[in-house]
Amino acid sequence: MITEKAPLRGIFTPNIVPLDDQGEINEAELRRYVDWLIERGVHGLYPNGSTGEFLRFTAEERRRIIEIIVDQVAGRVPILAGAAEANTRETIKACEYYHELGVRAVAIVSPFYYRLSPAGVYAYFREIARNSPVDITLYNIPMFASPIDVPTVARLAEECERVVAIKDSSGDLPHMMRMIAAVQPIRPDFAFLTGWDAALMPMLLVGCHGGTNATSGVVPEITRKLYDLTIAGRLDQARDLQYRLLKLFDAMIMTAEFPEGFRAALRLRGIRTGVGRQPQSDTQQMALEQLSRQLQCLLAEEGFTDEPVGGCPAGDGVDSEQVARIVREVMNELRKRGMA
Amino acid sequence: MITEKAPLRGIFTPNIVPLDDQGEINEAELRRYVDWLIERGVHGLYPNGSTGEFLRFTAEERRRIIEIIVDQVAGRVPILAGAAEANTRETIKACEYYHELGVRAVAIVSPFYYRLSPAGVYAYFREIARNSPVDITLYNIPMFASPIDVPTVARLAEECERVVAIKDSSGDLPHMMRMIAAVQPIRPDFAFLTGWDAALMPMLLVGCHGGTNATSGVVPEITRKLYDLTIAGRLDQARDLQYRLLKLFDAMIMTAEFPEGFRAALRLRGIRTGVGRQPQSDTQQMALEQLSRQLQCLLAEEGFTDEPVGGCPAGDGVDSEQVARIVREVMNELRKRGMA
Amino acid sequence: MITEKAPLRGIFTPNIVPLDDQGEINEAELRRYVDWLIERGVHGLYPNGSTGEFLRFTAEERRRIIEIIVDQVAGRVPILAGAAEANTRETIKACEYYHELGVRAVAIVSPFYYRLSPAGVYAYFREIARNSPVDITLYNIPMFASPIDVPTVARLAEECERVVAIKDSSGDLPHMMRMIAAVQPIRPDFAFLTGWDAALMPMLLVGCHGGTNATSGVVPEITRKLYDLTIAGRLDQARDLQYRLLKLFDAMIMTAEFPEGFRAALRLRGIRTGVGRQPQSDTQQMALEQLSRQLQCLLAEEGFTDEPVGGCPAGDGVDSEQVARIVREVMNELRKRGMA
Amino acid sequence: MITEKAPLRGIFTPNIVPLDDQGEINEAELRRYVDWLIERGVHGLYPNGSTGEFLRFTAEERRRIIEIIVDQVAGRVPILAGAAEANTRETIKACEYYHELGVRAVAIVSPFYYRLSPAGVYAYFREIARNSPVDITLYNIPMFASPIDVPTVARLAEECERVVAIKDSSGDLPHMMRMIAAVQPIRPDFAFLTGWDAALMPMLLVGCHGGTNATSGVVPEITRKLYDLTIAGRLDQARDLQYRLLKLFDAMIMTAEFPEGFRAALRLRGIRTGVGRQPQSDTQQMALEQLSRQLQCLLAEEGFTDEPVGGCPAGDGVDSEQVARIVREVMNELRKRGMA
Repeated sequence: MITEKAPLRGIFTPNIVPLDDQGEINEAELRRYVDWLIERGVHGLYPNGSTGEFLRFTAEERRRIIEIIVDQVAGRVPILAGAAEANTRETIKACEYYHELGVRAVAIVSPFYYRLSPAGVYAYFREIARNSPVDITLYNIPMFASPIDVPTVARLAEECERVVAIKDSSGDLPHMMRMIAAVQPIRPDFAFLTGWDAALMPMLLVGCHGGTNATSGVVPEITRKLYDLTIAGRLDQARDLQYRLLKLFDAMIMTAEFPEGFRAALRLRGIRTGVGRQPQSDTQQMALEQLSRQLQCLLAEEGFTDEPVGGCPAGDGVDSEQVARIVREVMNELRKRGMA
Repeated sequence: MITEKAPLRGIFTPNIVPLDDQGEINEAELRRYVDWLIERGVHGLYPNGSTGEFLRFTAEERRRIIEIIVDQVAGRVPILAGAAEANTRETIKACEYYHELGVRAVAIVSPFYYRLSPAGVYAYFREIARNSPVDITLYNIPMFASPIDVPTVARLAEECERVVAIKDSSGDLPHMMRMIAAVQPIRPDFAFLTGWDAALMPMLLVGCHGGTNATSGVVPEITRKLYDLTIAGRLDQARDLQYRLLKLFDAMIMTAEFPEGFRAALRLRGIRTGVGRQPQSDTQQMALEQLSRQLQCLLAEEGFTDEPVGGCPAGDGVDSEQVARIVREVMNELRKRGMA
Repeated sequence: MITEKAPLRGIFTPNIVPLDDQGEINEAELRRYVDWLIERGVHGLYPNGSTGEFLRFTAEERRRIIEIIVDQVAGRVPILAGAAEANTRETIKACEYYHELGVRAVAIVSPFYYRLSPAGVYAYFREIARNSPVDITLYNIPMFASPIDVPTVARLAEECERVVAIKDSSGDLPHMMRMIAAVQPIRPDFAFLTGWDAALMPMLLVGCHGGTNATSGVVPEITRKLYDLTIAGRLDQARDLQYRLLKLFDAMIMTAEFPEGFRAALRLRGIRTGVGRQPQSDTQQMALEQLSRQLQCLLAEEGFTDEPVGGCPAGDGVDSEQVARIVREVMNELRKRGMA
Repeated sequence: MITEKAPLRGIFTPNIVPLDDQGEINEAELRRYVDWLIERGVHGLYPNGSTGEFLRFTAEERRRIIEIIVDQVAGRVPILAGAAEANTRETIKACEYYHELGVRAVAIVSPFYYRLSPAGVYAYFREIARNSPVDITLYNIPMFASPIDVPTVARLAEECERVVAIKDSSGDLPHMMRMIAAVQPIRPDFAFLTGWDAALMPMLLVGCHGGTNATSGVVPEITRKLYDLTIAGRLDQARDLQYRLLKLFDAMIMTAEFPEGFRAALRLRGIRTGVGRQPQSDTQQMALEQLSRQLQCLLAEEGFTDEPVGGCPAGDGVDSEQVARIVREVMNELRKRGMA
């Protein structure tokens, strides 16, 4: 059983939620996935994150997800529960409930849709922090939500004991350093987690305590090892691994609608993720199939899967079949836009 | 009783929802506000829009809002009901329910938080359109949600009979013209509504059929009159009114966190809006008080309120008290950031 | 002979500079082009603008261009001479020289490359305005240069008599209205010109005095007629023409590197533009050939050229040859990126 | 004497050019500054960079700057000469001239003002690379100029032997890794330099070969030491130094119009920089004086200057005088905007 107050350290997996054929939460597979992740060494779980598509579930489902995960984890690793709801009152209720369930902390994304000013972001988190019985991780993801700027982080860290960490997914390394420089002198216990797998090693080297990394849901062995090697100061090996992780990360994040690339890769690792709730057009589905093949080659390189039928191209090369498919997709698009 | 299939024309008010002292929906005041708006000439209502803060209500509350408004409107004007929920399945259920209630159409904002590609936006709306029993208005608001580009609008208009209109809040006039040029030849019945009050007159002049304008919730008399004058070709008067509306719009939209400026102005018109659900910092509250004073002067100029105690500055001038307040706020900010 | 102090009104053409086979200024063709434009009704010329690629000429060439144009125009229309040089001292020298040559005014783009704050933009223009013997038009083009915000325009208009106009290429209609509302009460003589052809009609309808429009260099007949119809209040005809101009404008501005599309179209009108100074890759050249064919169809629709050999597709359709070309280009790109 | 073909390694200073009271190049002080930099350990010089304000000098002055520096350096360190001119022909002439003078390589910024597509950026550099007698460093600074994307870097590296390095000032660490991953396998000799001082240590740790860092023009001792410590693997000391450099860098880059903060700091180190060519408003000058005082405290902490008269605040605190000044500036701004 972990101590409730252990500081947040290491790799927290923002887990995808497997769905069944009806699009409902596949509880059995979710439980199996939780075990699979813990067995492969992740330090904690982070359900209801962006990778976990918290927004595409109902409020009831979000609670159900935490219940299942708390039950299945059974104290083996700490849980960071995404708790953002429709407004501060609903969010505080979620904090209370997740606290009762025994999560280590909650993570609350900055207000989204509306882009709030720093003063508005501050007021939002302060209201929640004053009323939450459980520790809070700020979640900064400026490409999706209102940015949390450095003075706001510092002010919340200073005024609100409950705010114990920030998860930053901006990928901006100097920004992370500015936060650490501003907050650490006034709150030495504050934890800094990066959500940008592409820079995990350098982020750890400038003082981050860990990460909430989507890759750790697919290749937990690699993300965990990268963390261990970096912490141990074995930089040559860490650098090599960071470059390999970058390749995987880019393939999963750039080629398809987020988080479809991660879902596709997870299926290759044997987790029955089911089909995501965001519909995909024919073009997108073709692209996903192609991506899946490419991911299988990358995972095979790492020893996690077999090569796909027909083999993989040497190097980073792309075979003529892929080109043919791309051309077909382009033709399709042209046709749909009335150009053919 | 309006005919269900009347085309969407005119000014639809994206109404704010009054709250009581406990932060709950103030049903009585909402009903009074609906009457107030209809009496002042708006052509329709648009509950659960961005101005209506759909995101800060729970799914149950969003349904309750539509129920109240349908009941109170009692067929006097058409209702465009915001119906976006957590995923396509939930959204389709909302479409079905609002259809049973008798709304003219639903409006569905493009997927937000995640920024989807055009293919993803297309797939999302197609899935909903194929399953909705009620007409659908696409809602494009690129500063908050995934943009709906011109080819996607054209494709949805062509393939989906249920998609009958677009509400575009980009404020980009050539973009509106490109949509009209692409869609009108294939769907002459398609309606184009602008959500950007600052350009209502020119938008109507290039072919828009109306607007869903937040100002119409505060000064319905002006927004409606601007529509009438423009449609009647009385451009000199329309231009003058558009400039006056711009001044009001800018004051409400630029000085405070959206939609707090609109709420503040609405209070000045005698609607008991209550306090919004997004907490405001002390600095923001001081700024809102100042804005309220400024809005009172602007509304007094239009004859809607008395001048505030102490009077209004001549022209656009700002009195010394305002400057003193601004300086106080700056000092406050500096202090909070440890600089004083 | 125009009076020097006539206010800036109407359509000023930001003319392209024809080059010869050695890439030098083709003086004879430039003179012929000037006559061609004036004969087709443009109200003025605007050499050394963005369309005129001022940046791709040397300081000496920029002066030579103005000399030729002043000489050829011979007082028939006013000249607005782009005068931005390396720094304020060089710019002021250019102002002095162009003043001696007899231009009506200069146009000075906001500082570019470095993105200056409003205070920096203000200081830059004030320094020039205090030392220029000739009237100055501010040039706001935020996609390329430091934005000139509304308070800065108002302050410069108030403090600097020499600043008599702004050319705004943002295409943002409410922004234009905000400038007019802020400046006109303090400087009734100030002129507002739009550089965004896609919104010329609506810009004129909210109070603009004219435009510096790249389309007027290619289809001066249309741009001029659109201006005339709008000013005359013949809105139905103006709207129709604005839509046709938008189609041409989009084809020229979106399909190729600016201003290559305009150069290609100008060649179709019989002006020997020569090859631009910015090199084009093979892919770009193929795209330009394709664009040229499409432009020829659009210009043929307007009666300015014959249809290309092989004819034009009905409606906006695109023939199979175009699709084949696009596919070839895609294949090429893939190949160059090592994917085929 | 350095070998001409030594690979680009270490810290290249993008030097500011001292000006005299007439605003002309102060040759004597520039020579003294060159010596001062070399004595303090920079590995090379990079005149006519962004910090060197290449754009604010005339073409003749840019040549003169390189002449002076080549003469003064006298082979002690390699020179990377900024060579971007009005167009490819002028740029190639500059390459030829600088080659004759004996520079190690030129650096050419991506086309600016116009935002070119990747194909246009490729065509531009290829044209220059095919005709340049001297090695070329690509210069990517997406906040000021057309971005050079990864496939374009890879393609140029593959096709053009003359292209030997890239200077990337994006500060985006994963982007740097993507470039290294794409280029190193095909061009093992290719050098990667970072222009973003805030991330120098992490950039070196993922494989960069050095930097062109503006801080090295002001505190060459620190930037050089940071490079040495990082290369030597003394990460704890390097990290500490990187945080201190970040503080200095942020003060110089964020508080004033670039590169005024660097010029102000350089003056504190005893270099007579003169006044920059971009005029400063009164507000900006007051802010610069305030910045200068703050910089003097930061430089005093590092032992490079005395504390300013009146001393420095403890920690990062700010004294009441500073607050009074800020308030005065705010009042000033309000007044200028007609609000007081």
